[in-house]
Amino acid sequence: LGPRGYEIVIGAGSLAALGHRLRDLARATAAGSLRLGPRALVVGDENTRTYATAVLDGLTAGGFAGDAVLLREGETAKSLTAVATIYDKLASMPADRGTMVVAVGGGVVGDVAGFAAATYARGVPWVVVPTTLLAMVDSAVGGKVGVNHPRGKNLIGAFHQPRAVWIDLTTLGTLPEREYRSGLAEVVKYGVALDAELFDSLEAQAEPLARRDTGALGPVVARCCELKARVVEEDEQETTGRRAVLNYGHTFAHAFEAVAGYGRWLHGEAVAAGMACAARLAVRVGQCPPDVEHRQNRLLARFGLPTRPDGHWLAAAVLEVMRTDKKAVSGRLRFVLPSRLGAAALVERVDERAVIAVLHEIHGDPPHESP
Amino acid sequence: LGPRGYEIVIGAGSLAALGHRLRDLARATAAGSLRLGPRALVVGDENTRTYATAVLDGLTAGGFAGDAVLLREGETAKSLTAVATIYDKLASMPADRGTMVVAVGGGVVGDVAGFAAATYARGVPWVVVPTTLLAMVDSAVGGKVGVNHPRGKNLIGAFHQPRAVWIDLTTLGTLPEREYRSGLAEVVKYGVALDAELFDSLEAQAEPLARRDTGALGPVVARCCELKARVVEEDEQETTGRRAVLNYGHTFAHAFEAVAGYGRWLHGEAVAAGMACAARLAVRVGQCPPDVEHRQNRLLARFGLPTRPDGHWLAAAVLEVMRTDKKAVSGRLRFVLPSRLGAAALVERVDERAVIAVLHEIHGDPPHESP
Repeated sequence: LGPRGYEIVIGAGSLAALGHRLRDLARATAAGSLRLGPRALVVGDENTRTYATAVLDGLTAGGFAGDAVLLREGETAKSLTAVATIYDKLASMPADRGTMVVAVGGGVVGDVAGFAAATYARGVPWVVVPTTLLAMVDSAVGGKVGVNHPRGKNLIGAFHQPRAVWIDLTTLGTLPEREYRSGLAEVVKYGVALDAELFDSLEAQAEPLARRDTGALGPVVARCCELKARVVEEDEQETTGRRAVLNYGHTFAHAFEAVAGYGRWLHGEAVAAGMACAARLAVRVGQCPPDVEHRQNRLLARFGLPTRPDGHWLAAAVLEVMRTDKKAVSGRLRFVLPSRLGAAALVERVDERAVIAVLHEIHGDPPHESP
Repeated sequence: LGPRGYEIVIGAGSLAALGHRLRDLARATAAGSLRLGPRALVVGDENTRTYATAVLDGLTAGGFAGDAVLLREGETAKSLTAVATIYDKLASMPADRGTMVVAVGGGVVGDVAGFAAATYARGVPWVVVPTTLLAMVDSAVGGKVGVNHPRGKNLIGAFHQPRAVWIDLTTLGTLPEREYRSGLAEVVKYGVALDAELFDSLEAQAEPLARRDTGALGPVVARCCELKARVVEEDEQETTGRRAVLNYGHTFAHAFEAVAGYGRWLHGEAVAAGMACAARLAVRVGQCPPDVEHRQNRLLARFGLPTRPDGHWLAAAVLEVMRTDKKAVSGRLRFVLPSRLGAAALVERVDERAVIAVLHEIHGDPPHESP
């Protein structure tokens, strides 16, 4: 990404060291337009209070004039209101164009803080410190930031690359089990959609990964970041269709989340069910051998993840949300479908009847229920 | 600006033709990532209702599925609330990434609609149809969009280049006199800060320009757009300091507007007073011959524009706002100061005492009142 390139650092117990690293970055960029500091705002939430404090202490030790703000918990905080809280804090510091926003938390904190950074003073520098597996392997890399709109997830947003992604695997220690497993869904996604070798290693190490073994996790997280960074480099602003491959399972997942009501499902759970539907759809339209679906779903199940939407939602409601998805083109449905393990592509103009059939099939509904 | 380049079209009575031009643009880009249409949302306000309708009719005739939303009048509408109104409308259409936002109005409408376009679905295409002189020569060109924060003007914003700038000079016919003259302040700014020849021609044609003679206006508006476009090309995201030259008079102006309360002054009026202060400051610190200040202020007066802030605001209050200005670096004051007619540059670390002295001097205060 040229001058907007940045480093992804993966370590264990490395939170406090971030301040010194940023001080070095600030020194290196002091004269240029990418100037950092001297002020920094740490954004966290109730779950990451301890980590946010450690980062803030490190920043202070690194010579920054630091301040902190904690967002309310959960997906409901991914709103313009949360963004306005950060704007207010930045304005009161007062922040200038070198003031750095440091997001310490999961995807919500990163997305909200990153969007505030993207739009405050037309863009201030930011750094992301993901503390959930989902954020580490997915949202922290790639520069997509934003908030939800009542009509759709992430409808309000921007592209704003962070200056650094700082991953401390020990922060996963305090993650609730359900959230951790939810992150594994995105890990499986990389395997199915982009890297058969990664998928093999996930199968081989499913148990150590499920119990958060750092030794097993390190290379997997690094590989996922690498895969994501490579795709983002090829298609930063999602214009060529290449980046779309990262949305494998997501057209279904977004619709499930919207129909269920945000917050009911964790994102990774919806993605797992979404991948199950997408793989079924791929098999149904004859684009993918059934073996891919079976291996994928078996691995998801070993990670304790769902392989079907829970509840019998009206297929019509799911379809309606899909048509409003920001990745839809003029209301036509588009899905990322696998063709073999480690390869997937965007498929345009998928027949709605096939989608409806998959939604029924996956619940084991008798065929006559299909419209 | 490479693929983000766009055309600026200046005409008279050309509103309805926009739809056909955009249809051609849409056809040319149908296959690519810069796809336009088939939906379009026209954003206007109460003042531009007629023009917005003409544009909407043209879009419909051009084959677009058009819709419209009118914002509340005035600067108070330049808020996140106004942006949310547009988000809601876009979500209800529903818009997709090809849906075009067409802003028909002055700077407020352009900034608000442009910011909504910049941040909806991480950026949808937009076109700006400026209907005030200020918007034509200033805000419509350059891609700066955004809204105000209680703590500062334009604190929330983004860079988002429009696909086209469509100027119909006949829309100036309905502009209130005070607003029209306010626009002339920015025209004078281009002359003083960037183009001595333009300044000469403004002096020579002050009367036809003051009475909105289209023949005199056409070349002047074109020249201002050209100057602005050139500066923006050199420094799109305001990183090299080059683009800062466009802010001649604006450090003072923003502070005056904030201290007076937004809406009390028109932007151009504040800029006129701001240029008077900046020229005085330049003369005071020995960087500029007094003749520049005199010719500038004489021309501003001929256009019925103020050459001093009205009211004796506390210099301390003005300075406090300046320190929070998003162009300030770590609270240090920076001003764009002229060195001769047609040339100005960013001056860092200006002595606050000189600024205070200028604020007193310009009101004719006796020197002992300075702190």
